[in-house]
Amino acid sequence: MIDVAIVGAPGYAGAELTRLLAAHPTLRPAMLTSAAEAGRRVGDVYPALAPFVDAVYVEPDPAEIAARCRVAFLAVPHTAALEIAPALLEAHVTVIDASADFRLKDPAVYEHWYGVPHTAHDLLAEAVYGLPEFDRTQLPGARLVACPGCYPTATILAATPALESGIARGDRVIVDAKSGVSGAGRTPGPGTHFPAVHESLAPYKVTSHRHTPEIEQGLSLVSGLDTRVVFTPHLVPMTRGLLATAYLELNEEISDAEAVTLYRTRYRDEPFITVHDAGRMPSTLEVRGSNRAHIGIAVDARAGVLIVVCAIDNLVKGTAGQAVQCANLVLDLPETAGLDLPVPVV
Amino acid sequence: MIDVAIVGAPGYAGAELTRLLAAHPTLRPAMLTSAAEAGRRVGDVYPALAPFVDAVYVEPDPAEIAARCRVAFLAVPHTAALEIAPALLEAHVTVIDASADFRLKDPAVYEHWYGVPHTAHDLLAEAVYGLPEFDRTQLPGARLVACPGCYPTATILAATPALESGIARGDRVIVDAKSGVSGAGRTPGPGTHFPAVHESLAPYKVTSHRHTPEIEQGLSLVSGLDTRVVFTPHLVPMTRGLLATAYLELNEEISDAEAVTLYRTRYRDEPFITVHDAGRMPSTLEVRGSNRAHIGIAVDARAGVLIVVCAIDNLVKGTAGQAVQCANLVLDLPETAGLDLPVPVV
Amino acid sequence: MIDVAIVGAPGYAGAELTRLLAAHPTLRPAMLTSAAEAGRRVGDVYPALAPFVDAVYVEPDPAEIAARCRVAFLAVPHTAALEIAPALLEAHVTVIDASADFRLKDPAVYEHWYGVPHTAHDLLAEAVYGLPEFDRTQLPGARLVACPGCYPTATILAATPALESGIARGDRVIVDAKSGVSGAGRTPGPGTHFPAVHESLAPYKVTSHRHTPEIEQGLSLVSGLDTRVVFTPHLVPMTRGLLATAYLELNEEISDAEAVTLYRTRYRDEPFITVHDAGRMPSTLEVRGSNRAHIGIAVDARAGVLIVVCAIDNLVKGTAGQAVQCANLVLDLPETAGLDLPVPVV
Amino acid sequence: MIDVAIVGAPGYAGAELTRLLAAHPTLRPAMLTSAAEAGRRVGDVYPALAPFVDAVYVEPDPAEIAARCRVAFLAVPHTAALEIAPALLEAHVTVIDASADFRLKDPAVYEHWYGVPHTAHDLLAEAVYGLPEFDRTQLPGARLVACPGCYPTATILAATPALESGIARGDRVIVDAKSGVSGAGRTPGPGTHFPAVHESLAPYKVTSHRHTPEIEQGLSLVSGLDTRVVFTPHLVPMTRGLLATAYLELNEEISDAEAVTLYRTRYRDEPFITVHDAGRMPSTLEVRGSNRAHIGIAVDARAGVLIVVCAIDNLVKGTAGQAVQCANLVLDLPETAGLDLPVPVV
Repeated sequence: MIDVAIVGAPGYAGAELTRLLAAHPTLRPAMLTSAAEAGRRVGDVYPALAPFVDAVYVEPDPAEIAARCRVAFLAVPHTAALEIAPALLEAHVTVIDASADFRLKDPAVYEHWYGVPHTAHDLLAEAVYGLPEFDRTQLPGARLVACPGCYPTATILAATPALESGIARGDRVIVDAKSGVSGAGRTPGPGTHFPAVHESLAPYKVTSHRHTPEIEQGLSLVSGLDTRVVFTPHLVPMTRGLLATAYLELNEEISDAEAVTLYRTRYRDEPFITVHDAGRMPSTLEVRGSNRAHIGIAVDARAGVLIVVCAIDNLVKGTAGQAVQCANLVLDLPETAGLDLPVPVV
Repeated sequence: MIDVAIVGAPGYAGAELTRLLAAHPTLRPAMLTSAAEAGRRVGDVYPALAPFVDAVYVEPDPAEIAARCRVAFLAVPHTAALEIAPALLEAHVTVIDASADFRLKDPAVYEHWYGVPHTAHDLLAEAVYGLPEFDRTQLPGARLVACPGCYPTATILAATPALESGIARGDRVIVDAKSGVSGAGRTPGPGTHFPAVHESLAPYKVTSHRHTPEIEQGLSLVSGLDTRVVFTPHLVPMTRGLLATAYLELNEEISDAEAVTLYRTRYRDEPFITVHDAGRMPSTLEVRGSNRAHIGIAVDARAGVLIVVCAIDNLVKGTAGQAVQCANLVLDLPETAGLDLPVPVV
Repeated sequence: MIDVAIVGAPGYAGAELTRLLAAHPTLRPAMLTSAAEAGRRVGDVYPALAPFVDAVYVEPDPAEIAARCRVAFLAVPHTAALEIAPALLEAHVTVIDASADFRLKDPAVYEHWYGVPHTAHDLLAEAVYGLPEFDRTQLPGARLVACPGCYPTATILAATPALESGIARGDRVIVDAKSGVSGAGRTPGPGTHFPAVHESLAPYKVTSHRHTPEIEQGLSLVSGLDTRVVFTPHLVPMTRGLLATAYLELNEEISDAEAVTLYRTRYRDEPFITVHDAGRMPSTLEVRGSNRAHIGIAVDARAGVLIVVCAIDNLVKGTAGQAVQCANLVLDLPETAGLDLPVPVV
Repeated sequence: MIDVAIVGAPGYAGAELTRLLAAHPTLRPAMLTSAAEAGRRVGDVYPALAPFVDAVYVEPDPAEIAARCRVAFLAVPHTAALEIAPALLEAHVTVIDASADFRLKDPAVYEHWYGVPHTAHDLLAEAVYGLPEFDRTQLPGARLVACPGCYPTATILAATPALESGIARGDRVIVDAKSGVSGAGRTPGPGTHFPAVHESLAPYKVTSHRHTPEIEQGLSLVSGLDTRVVFTPHLVPMTRGLLATAYLELNEEISDAEAVTLYRTRYRDEPFITVHDAGRMPSTLEVRGSNRAHIGIAVDARAGVLIVVCAIDNLVKGTAGQAVQCANLVLDLPETAGLDLPVPVV
């Protein structure tokens, strides 16, 4: 067994990491840290975890983490990872960071979108972007993994085969995305108050969502161009689930079946991706609780647009599951370890 | 008072018409027809209506309607309006049709998308499209009004000022739309079964939804071009509400504030439209139960795309409220009669 | 028109009062006060109200209220009404208090359950309990009305005919109640955070909910005994609606039909109460948005227990609607003024 | 590995069995039968299961089941188990029946409540009631297990320690129960139509629910009396989860802490039961997807009533998980095999 720490364990990403690692065959959640909840039992905060995790949240002390753990998952807000990652790395702890702090290669872009200075430029080059289906070659042995955001995960998976193959125009992509409320985290606020959300559907942070530059960075790598993304996220009255609907202008005529074949070929060996038959679209319900990404494809031949829809669970493939998948690859474990369990159908 | 009939009264559109007309100052719901529920009391089917409507559903007999009512609202599935409208018109009953049967001017387009023959070609020219904000000039005195579908209502309201003014490209518009489940009507089925819908978000009828040609017909009139619409509807786990997010490619640079001004100017005198300040987006909750359309606007200057979001209640401005609004105009009543009540905020 | 103030206007109770009064034929919401939101436009806080209320929230100054309004609705937390009501009454403003501060006749009981001193003992005797169906005789001309809590409203309506008539045991009543989340108000917190509530059903404040003594006070009056209430509220994942299921031990054999007749006789002249036929139970959906209380009755003959279920909208008959109903009676307006509009069926 | 069949596999109980068995260390779902879906791929009906179950639904032929499987789970409506169980048993297939057909020991009671004749009286004596926490001694080696209904499971777990110990009156128990919509199964109908259920809470089958005699049978065994149960189920707008709130009249004074100790002692060795600390109540969310039963306890000392709340997932501990738990015991496997996985916290 490999002992790991979860930093920021009581948040939703941390709690999902706790759940997944509690059933992982090799990784053992040995330290669950939280400044806010230090001293409380995990099972008191989350009764669902009580039978599985007999532990108390502790202060996030890097030296203590290094003394006890080989790997640390960071499930913290941005800037918090900037603070703790350097100390952990120096102490030879592998860092799997689920925050935004090491995703953007250009610190100026980070500083523009996040409005704070990036204080660890030197680590940006080393950080490996943790979307295995995009590029898993750099993950084995990596010291620092920057796991993607939930929206970039779904969007990059949706757009990559079309851009890589050149069937679609690479300089501009329109992405209309929708997320359940757990994407906003565990801290209550006016925008996540039940009566304000229920029976309410609305876009938010239109043209200003911080996942935009991350999507553009990823898609530009794929297209070889400076890809502009029009990205419009919406909040949907459900707890879990994220759907990205990508609109890609076709450079050539292609049938539904050909597009499906293209995507299936690209994702042939991927253990977590299903490309549906032409005519079938994914729902967030069918991936709820799992690390899977389900993709549906339709060609709008009349308009010359390829519509690709990718459904994920924002807290699993969108966050915690992906972090475990990356850790598995970093540590040379089976990629699906701890992530291959069937989930409820409703 | 003017006596009116509601044909297909127990469906959701019919029930909303019943609710609205029960509080209307001039129109009185004198006959509520239904082949399926004939003989049942309205209040037994809908206890919420019991205190307001002391009536029994009756068979939809055109002669009886003509004998008792001056106006008939048709809240029936497509093809059913084709069957009953001619007899009603011949008997001098004004027909406000909420079905799809008279929306498309070209019967070949109807037959292509609906897969059935159109049996009343002669009435197509006469039918007035019932979206007052689009064009209300033909409504006064009309004999036959074809009320728009819910998606076309929101989409045409979202796109018209941009296309009319020429600031956006008119030959292709991308519309990502989302609707609550009541849009599927009152008849249960696998796609509206609670456990299958709750916590589920999914697109449906991608590239094949029957509202596509109706949207194209409307936007082509506005743009003066043969507008192609990429239209992707999604089902959202909520009962009411519809949101259309339109992506319009800009022909020129424009600021958020200028775009807002353009929309406000276009909709200056509209009693049911609010154009939000730049930076504010509408939610379906804020129009729930009302006949209003709330519009939010953002310019994605980086990509040259105008994003316009229109929120309506699919059963009110999307169906029953709009039908009442049209009837008011046809009958020279105040346009807002029966439609100007504040709605719950949650 | 009579000008009225709403104190605490941006909370859910205040917002519902605003909505109802905006459509009231005689009462006009002339001042909307809020310490927290003073200076903000009503329509910015609640876009749904924007077309109907062109006003700005102002500081709750009693002198200003007295100068401009004849009636003040208090939609404030407990203790806040204790602070402001005396000044308003002294300035000859009629006070319709939706808070808990004047509901309990015995200040010691208030102090026990609320944990704070009651600072206006002298007003307790004068305060009229505002549940018209229970006793409306004292309301005309009252200076101070204490509107009941949402749970007491549903429970007292459910139990009164059985206790009054003596068919059921009056010394102990079991009430299992369920409420939507809006009952917790507009302020976000861990217990109203969407992901924590959705798909979650749980009891709360078992044996300690503050509505318990209020229910006991009401039912003791009816039964003539010292009625003990076992009261267990549950939080249900919906925004609106409250259901009280009362279990009353029968003193005698009675059929379903006889029980229905007993209830219908008791509530014969009530404009807002429906007693369903035997075998039909009410749902919260059928009263959503309305001031109605719908009651269903079943006799469990095997166990000698009468089961009475009362469904209300917690924000209307449970709060704001009831306050308007009381104000109508105080001011000698028609009891149903502003409260007789049909509501959506879904 | 032991090959098992699931009869009625595409229903929700069957689908949950499929999910649980797909991850079971010893039981292998070798045959999935369904008359209605025969010939369809499992993954086409449930995309969530596609990656885990590469199978096609087949006709439910007892001979074929006997040829291939040692155990058959029956996830069928009542009467269907009566038809198939005898043939399976004769062919030496162990039957774990999740239907109602063998739960009630007295066929006259079955015939009274279900309105159909019981055609396998001889098997009733042999059938072992499958609630291990109630009595697991007869399960090892059993040929026919009658798994309890979802409501009886939660109710019997809630009431047993109080009745067994004699602290509460055993001749009458009041149970107010609430269930998510998946309890109604996979077949759509007016009562499970999304718009009819959402924002709706209502009791159903009051005094007539078929789980009543089953609860009475169980509690009478525990109390040694002829226990009458007042049982009122409610439908709650959520997919999963069941909460039973039991009201038990105390024979003696007891503190919260003593009651908790009594329950903890009774359930000391139970792997799936948590008795919460006094003052903490369970939610359906905390057991969602798991085989656990969480119990909360409060003494209403003023009224002499013990309130016990039991939360389960109706499809797991209430159906499929319990069936697996029973099969584990029948086959002498670890009781928790396949049932010990942590579940998502939201």
